[in-house]
Amino acid sequence: MMVSQALNTDLYQLTMAQAYFKTGLISEDACFYMHFRENPFKGGYAIACGMAQLVDLIADFAFTSEELSWLATLTTPADTPLFEQDFLDALGALSLTLDVDAVPEGTVIFPYEPIIRVIGPIMQCQLIETALLNQVNYQILIATKAARVCQAAEGPVAEFGLRRAPGPAGGIYASRAAIIGGCSSTSDVAAGRLFDLPVSGTHAHSWVMAHPDELTAFRAFAEVSPENCVLLVDTYDTIAGVRNAMTVAHEMESRGQRLSGIRIDSGDLAWLSIQARGLLDAAGLEYVQIIASNDLDEQTIASLREQGARIDAWGVGTKLVTAYDQPALPGVYKLSATRACTERAWQPHIKVSEQSRKSTFPGILSLRRYFDADGIMIGDMVYDQELPPTDDLIIDPHDDLRRKDLSGGRAINLLEPLARNGVIVWQSVSAREAQTHTRTSLGQLHLSNRRFLNPHSYPVGLDAQLHEQRDRLIRKARGFKV
Amino acid sequence: MMVSQALNTDLYQLTMAQAYFKTGLISEDACFYMHFRENPFKGGYAIACGMAQLVDLIADFAFTSEELSWLATLTTPADTPLFEQDFLDALGALSLTLDVDAVPEGTVIFPYEPIIRVIGPIMQCQLIETALLNQVNYQILIATKAARVCQAAEGPVAEFGLRRAPGPAGGIYASRAAIIGGCSSTSDVAAGRLFDLPVSGTHAHSWVMAHPDELTAFRAFAEVSPENCVLLVDTYDTIAGVRNAMTVAHEMESRGQRLSGIRIDSGDLAWLSIQARGLLDAAGLEYVQIIASNDLDEQTIASLREQGARIDAWGVGTKLVTAYDQPALPGVYKLSATRACTERAWQPHIKVSEQSRKSTFPGILSLRRYFDADGIMIGDMVYDQELPPTDDLIIDPHDDLRRKDLSGGRAINLLEPLARNGVIVWQSVSAREAQTHTRTSLGQLHLSNRRFLNPHSYPVGLDAQLHEQRDRLIRKARGFKV
Repeated sequence: MMVSQALNTDLYQLTMAQAYFKTGLISEDACFYMHFRENPFKGGYAIACGMAQLVDLIADFAFTSEELSWLATLTTPADTPLFEQDFLDALGALSLTLDVDAVPEGTVIFPYEPIIRVIGPIMQCQLIETALLNQVNYQILIATKAARVCQAAEGPVAEFGLRRAPGPAGGIYASRAAIIGGCSSTSDVAAGRLFDLPVSGTHAHSWVMAHPDELTAFRAFAEVSPENCVLLVDTYDTIAGVRNAMTVAHEMESRGQRLSGIRIDSGDLAWLSIQARGLLDAAGLEYVQIIASNDLDEQTIASLREQGARIDAWGVGTKLVTAYDQPALPGVYKLSATRACTERAWQPHIKVSEQSRKSTFPGILSLRRYFDADGIMIGDMVYDQELPPTDDLIIDPHDDLRRKDLSGGRAINLLEPLARNGVIVWQSVSAREAQTHTRTSLGQLHLSNRRFLNPHSYPVGLDAQLHEQRDRLIRKARGFKV
Repeated sequence: MMVSQALNTDLYQLTMAQAYFKTGLISEDACFYMHFRENPFKGGYAIACGMAQLVDLIADFAFTSEELSWLATLTTPADTPLFEQDFLDALGALSLTLDVDAVPEGTVIFPYEPIIRVIGPIMQCQLIETALLNQVNYQILIATKAARVCQAAEGPVAEFGLRRAPGPAGGIYASRAAIIGGCSSTSDVAAGRLFDLPVSGTHAHSWVMAHPDELTAFRAFAEVSPENCVLLVDTYDTIAGVRNAMTVAHEMESRGQRLSGIRIDSGDLAWLSIQARGLLDAAGLEYVQIIASNDLDEQTIASLREQGARIDAWGVGTKLVTAYDQPALPGVYKLSATRACTERAWQPHIKVSEQSRKSTFPGILSLRRYFDADGIMIGDMVYDQELPPTDDLIIDPHDDLRRKDLSGGRAINLLEPLARNGVIVWQSVSAREAQTHTRTSLGQLHLSNRRFLNPHSYPVGLDAQLHEQRDRLIRKARGFKV
């Protein structure tokens, strides 16, 4: 059985949609935005990702008649129908009319920035919320992890986490995000097919075990796959494995072929890679690459490099596709304005939290990035496009005495239109192109914001008018006189 | 674009398959088994899950002609075709002939047990490896987490993690596994549709924010949804929210209706739930349930209950669907025997690790569980079915002086056939039925193995003959004389 994209949602979106439908609030327009409150992995940045799937969601959004019939069978705790037929008919006839804007995939992003903005009938805004968060939260998380891993490696990183990834689609979206974050290839064939990603892979331990001995296994593999030949040398004893690979490399040379590399998948990768490099070089096999894998992430890769490991390329799996040290990005989708459909003016909304820090931003939010003369990013401004900024001052949303004047910098708007009135207007960008954009965008971020240990916090602030609007709404919500 | 189940694999399975094809090893039979080495979450058990998807994988395994054409376009680093046409033709003609056995979903399982066994042509065994591990690793992980959460809650637990789940299919398989582990419902509509799971949900903070004030929002929701009415009381001020919900509850009473419950999604859940219970009870609203959510897992739920929190039902999301404190189960798939297709006798295989503890088990592995007279599990035996056990003694695979005699106990075999010669023979079991099996199976596990803190380790051992066989192969691999 297949399910439509429309069904990829939380039930409460549908029960709320029915309530909007029955109360007439369905004719209210709303503006929602997505943001997150902390960079993942205690880092200094995140990478935008998953917007192509958001586009697909909007393009393909429709309930099938089988799905509507199934929804009609659901019951309340009182055993009455959960959904009324007139509402289900309306769902069946629904065609999205949303305006959607988002930061391009591969762009460096930060906490409290509106990275996606959705405007339209409130019921429609809610119906896409869960799928939007589901796709974008996960892909931002994995693209960011991949960018960090690649930053540590400063060399090719192959992603091969599929067997530990969360389900088949977890795998494909992890692979897509890993490429956008900077990985040079993935092992995931389905992801390669779906998203035109570079795929790579040679053989596993089982190939060696299926032969009488390791040398026989290596010879057999080199014979049938001379042009895609990386030999996995640690099935039995790694150093003995390196020697067997060297024997095969010399045999390949006599046939005019070249062994691409050896892979070490266990043991002390620093020590073993240094030993292996020594052996290979002494035998005139300087061109044979050493590839390392085994539960790697940005921290272990940085540590191995610090120890002088002689590793040319890296294979990263579990810790990348699960974002092991922080397996969820708690991005949220917040209502920031409403208007009755008969009106033109937006009513800004705020959700005031006990911690003011968690209070949302009110208005039709937009995002502007400033660069210095060298092209380095100097600060991002969040503003309400109904109240266009009159200057280049930003105010820290958590400390309003902390301000920064960005004037003189070159500024660009970061939100680009994905859909207008439900019609896709997004210029499709491939995963490989988005990877290039990641590289460019990270190159514009100062090193101090990219380091792993206590990165400098990048300035993101509110335009003065948005700040004033937020302040006023918090005071009002709390019943302050002033 | 759709992809077939066959494409849900690592590229190296296909490059190895081509090597098996070209070397003639394709005619070799192999036996692989899946196991894991440690219970997740420092716990005392895991829950088998994902076998229904393994059945689907085997039933639907086929490459489409478009996929084969796409594979033909892949190139080696030397820019030659990665796959030869005769191999791709063979893939296109391939029909699986595997024998597959697995522990039923919902069964309590332990480290080092063969929970899945695959027998057949080695190339086929490898072609399903990645998808098998991908599905089963993730679902065991989530089912186990759900079982632990439900164990702590001792009351209904609703899973609603979709927005933080890893992609749409990550979401549906997480929801499926959560129900099998013991959750009473999921918010994931697509998962409900696909796997016939109970779904639940009412409204979100945005419903409240879309109205002029909270009381108006509650009244509107109660009016249109009186029979599925749980009011979320913490949008602004939780205690004020409880009072607004009480007003609505009394208004509902006057219409002959009953408010189902209130939900608290932030703040100090212990203190707030106790306050709310007091207010509700004092107003004669003893029947109104209190539901709590907000980053819960088994540890926070246990702590809240210890503090006397008055919570009737729980909503669990992020930490369940991502298995936050251990987001991957590193289950592996190991070759344990081979035979040339012309022979009848199996050749047991072992992969010897530097740590003997990680060495695999050789043979055609099977699994037997023993119960005492009260129906409590007393130990599991791993044996080679080519060497049927002659007694009921098990030997600890990591300490051969630690032995346990299970004789006198009732014994059952845990592996059930899923496929024979590629044909599905599995009696389909629904997720709801598997949930019942989880409850039964956990009920047979002694409390000391179920506790969270330093659980007693459940006895899993090798039959004496399998132990002897493994010992002999390790000695041989290490070149010991004796």
